[in-house]
Amino acid sequence: MGEALRVALAGLGTVGAGVIKLIDANRTLIKRRAGRGIEIVAVSARDRARDRGVDLSRFDWTDDTASLASRADVDAVVELIGGSDGPALTLARAAIASGKAFVTANKAMIAHHGLELAEAAEEAGIAFKYEAAVAGGIPVIKGLREGAAANEISRVYGILNGTCNFILTTMEAEGRDFAEVLADAQRLGYAEADPSFDIDGVDAAHKLSILASLAFGTRIDFGAVAITGIRDVLAIDIAEAQALGFRVRLVGVGEAGPGGLFQRVHPCLVPVTHPLAHVTSSLNAIVAEGNFVGRLFFEGRGAGEGPTASAVVADLIDIARGEGGPAFAMPVASLAAPEIAQAGERRGRAYLRFTVADRPGVLAEITAAMRDANVSIESVIQRGAAVDGAVQLVMVTHEGPERCVADALERLRGSQSLTARPMLMHILDL
Amino acid sequence: MGEALRVALAGLGTVGAGVIKLIDANRTLIKRRAGRGIEIVAVSARDRARDRGVDLSRFDWTDDTASLASRADVDAVVELIGGSDGPALTLARAAIASGKAFVTANKAMIAHHGLELAEAAEEAGIAFKYEAAVAGGIPVIKGLREGAAANEISRVYGILNGTCNFILTTMEAEGRDFAEVLADAQRLGYAEADPSFDIDGVDAAHKLSILASLAFGTRIDFGAVAITGIRDVLAIDIAEAQALGFRVRLVGVGEAGPGGLFQRVHPCLVPVTHPLAHVTSSLNAIVAEGNFVGRLFFEGRGAGEGPTASAVVADLIDIARGEGGPAFAMPVASLAAPEIAQAGERRGRAYLRFTVADRPGVLAEITAAMRDANVSIESVIQRGAAVDGAVQLVMVTHEGPERCVADALERLRGSQSLTARPMLMHILDL
Repeated sequence: MGEALRVALAGLGTVGAGVIKLIDANRTLIKRRAGRGIEIVAVSARDRARDRGVDLSRFDWTDDTASLASRADVDAVVELIGGSDGPALTLARAAIASGKAFVTANKAMIAHHGLELAEAAEEAGIAFKYEAAVAGGIPVIKGLREGAAANEISRVYGILNGTCNFILTTMEAEGRDFAEVLADAQRLGYAEADPSFDIDGVDAAHKLSILASLAFGTRIDFGAVAITGIRDVLAIDIAEAQALGFRVRLVGVGEAGPGGLFQRVHPCLVPVTHPLAHVTSSLNAIVAEGNFVGRLFFEGRGAGEGPTASAVVADLIDIARGEGGPAFAMPVASLAAPEIAQAGERRGRAYLRFTVADRPGVLAEITAAMRDANVSIESVIQRGAAVDGAVQLVMVTHEGPERCVADALERLRGSQSLTARPMLMHILDL
Repeated sequence: MGEALRVALAGLGTVGAGVIKLIDANRTLIKRRAGRGIEIVAVSARDRARDRGVDLSRFDWTDDTASLASRADVDAVVELIGGSDGPALTLARAAIASGKAFVTANKAMIAHHGLELAEAAEEAGIAFKYEAAVAGGIPVIKGLREGAAANEISRVYGILNGTCNFILTTMEAEGRDFAEVLADAQRLGYAEADPSFDIDGVDAAHKLSILASLAFGTRIDFGAVAITGIRDVLAIDIAEAQALGFRVRLVGVGEAGPGGLFQRVHPCLVPVTHPLAHVTSSLNAIVAEGNFVGRLFFEGRGAGEGPTASAVVADLIDIARGEGGPAFAMPVASLAAPEIAQAGERRGRAYLRFTVADRPGVLAEITAAMRDANVSIESVIQRGAAVDGAVQLVMVTHEGPERCVADALERLRGSQSLTARPMLMHILDL
């Protein structure tokens, strides 16, 4: 057995406390598996006094987080502060510059600064790892970086935000509307007081941009992710989708096609026969499609103390075992800067819901717009009576280019027949 | 970029040809990801003349498979011959003794000789890898060895044989009986001419014994796996299970409990709400339960040219990247030799089907035996009329120790009321 790997831990929120608990609980096992112990020696956080349910007195405490980077008694720095910039980024840069192995769960920082950090880590010859940043406890970074490494990956997609999946599947199970379920989720601690990063799809987009880089050997391009959140999903959307054989999920999709790299996070209709349709509650799941392996599916807990700590310590075990290598599966200089594929050229079916005035001629106007935009309609559903003078009209289109559907909606913009913005969800026919 | 990793390939069946095709198709990508090329230099197989759809003329051919081990121009040996002993084992021993990195897809050899080979590899300081041996293209060896390495794993279980899953899910979809579907599967190439290794559960047991070692840090103990195959599963079992909210799957289960290590392969009833219930066709899937990560689920193609080649080349990429380490996640000397848990002490529900004579008193006799064995009955189903004078009687027990159910069956042994051996399947209430 070698010397223990000495770790400095910055950030003692839920995940930081979880890492301490995990190392305490599984110390002997970790030593057997890693070939050496893993021991925290120093910690830093905002509030020293807060009770985290773990004994911190054994660790050296510092209020100066950045100082962790330069300690001679530390081999690896774990960053669990969060935030794309600020103290997290300062610590990351300093730790790598000081030649410390660096582990983080910070998806925002990686989406924005991951390439810079990875390049610095390559130059310093140290490990830079972030398994916990995507899908919590699911080893999907490893799955793509190593497990599927022999494959050209054509598509990577999945359910990357547990809060959204909890809300959507609770709406599904209980037939309730978004705002109500969100309020419940906040009470239960499944959603933040300010939930916008989650429900507007930004968190999922951070993760998707990281997965896409790993899968396709391309530079992270968070800015190129088209993002739609779940605020506009109504109970009726979920009910009609179910009647049509679908479930509604917030899915991040990355594709490498002849037109370039395509990245989108959006609520979409998943056929009940697809494994993503069976991912409920706050679980995460990822699908990767390789040219030899076919479809790989990974599912597990995407957030929370235990799962995230599991991923952080898995990274530390890799480091203790001496397994590092390029953070994005290949040197940053080898990552391609691809063309950005235009969504409009993608082909697929779409779900459309129109909130319309309850008067003659409305259906004629909408269907004329669809015809003029070359959108062919597969099914139309209008149920029940008007509520507040408005009727919900649901359509599913035949497969066609997305730009045609966008054109149809453009033609209807400002129409007096529509009393609210139309709802568009793509159908995941994969 | 470093020098290419030079590979010798023994065995040119479906998987061997797949490895050549994969390296040809993804050569540039592999070089980017591995940091160096991976090139086959020498091959060996039984029949040089057979057309495998790949150009073999560029490789050095030898009829003397074992000679691949000692070639100075080879860094890694890939064994795809198959069989637990014979030429595969001879090659493995020789390659490791010669200091070559060693990659195999041979589950039988690992189940029987894996510890010996891993120990030799440790002494020689070389990588010994076998991702393709379990669940084909699914990176589950890596998932347990590295991804879940921070966790104490309490249970690992899954669908480990694609042939059985194809047969069971085809029976399920088409309502047909075992023998008929097996014959179809053989025609389609999903089942071997001699299918016994698959349908009697031996192949799944090989894989389970490997997963259990990785998950629990215990020595591989194939002999301790209790094995029941799927020959006795009737269409009626699948139909009644469905009516009760279950699907029938051949599941390998490994558990580390206070009573010791428990390993069993058996057809069992999986609740439709469980992810394994949605694994259809020839797919494989594995669940691992860790004390911090919770439940991880991996699904994908468990056999065939592409998926298996994907796993073999992933191992080669790891080797090219310099990532080796102990084959069973820790040195063989650290693996525990646990007690073997007795099945009888396990608690659970059971499905029982009795083929009974169509006459008075039969139900009384069976239920008396259940009562005397302390088995409590949750439901009883007897449908329709007798076929050939026999009636199928289906029961589901309440949760209780397995030994009580075994006792009840023992009490009924030789009973004139039963016209065939009872069918027992455990219910996977996980």
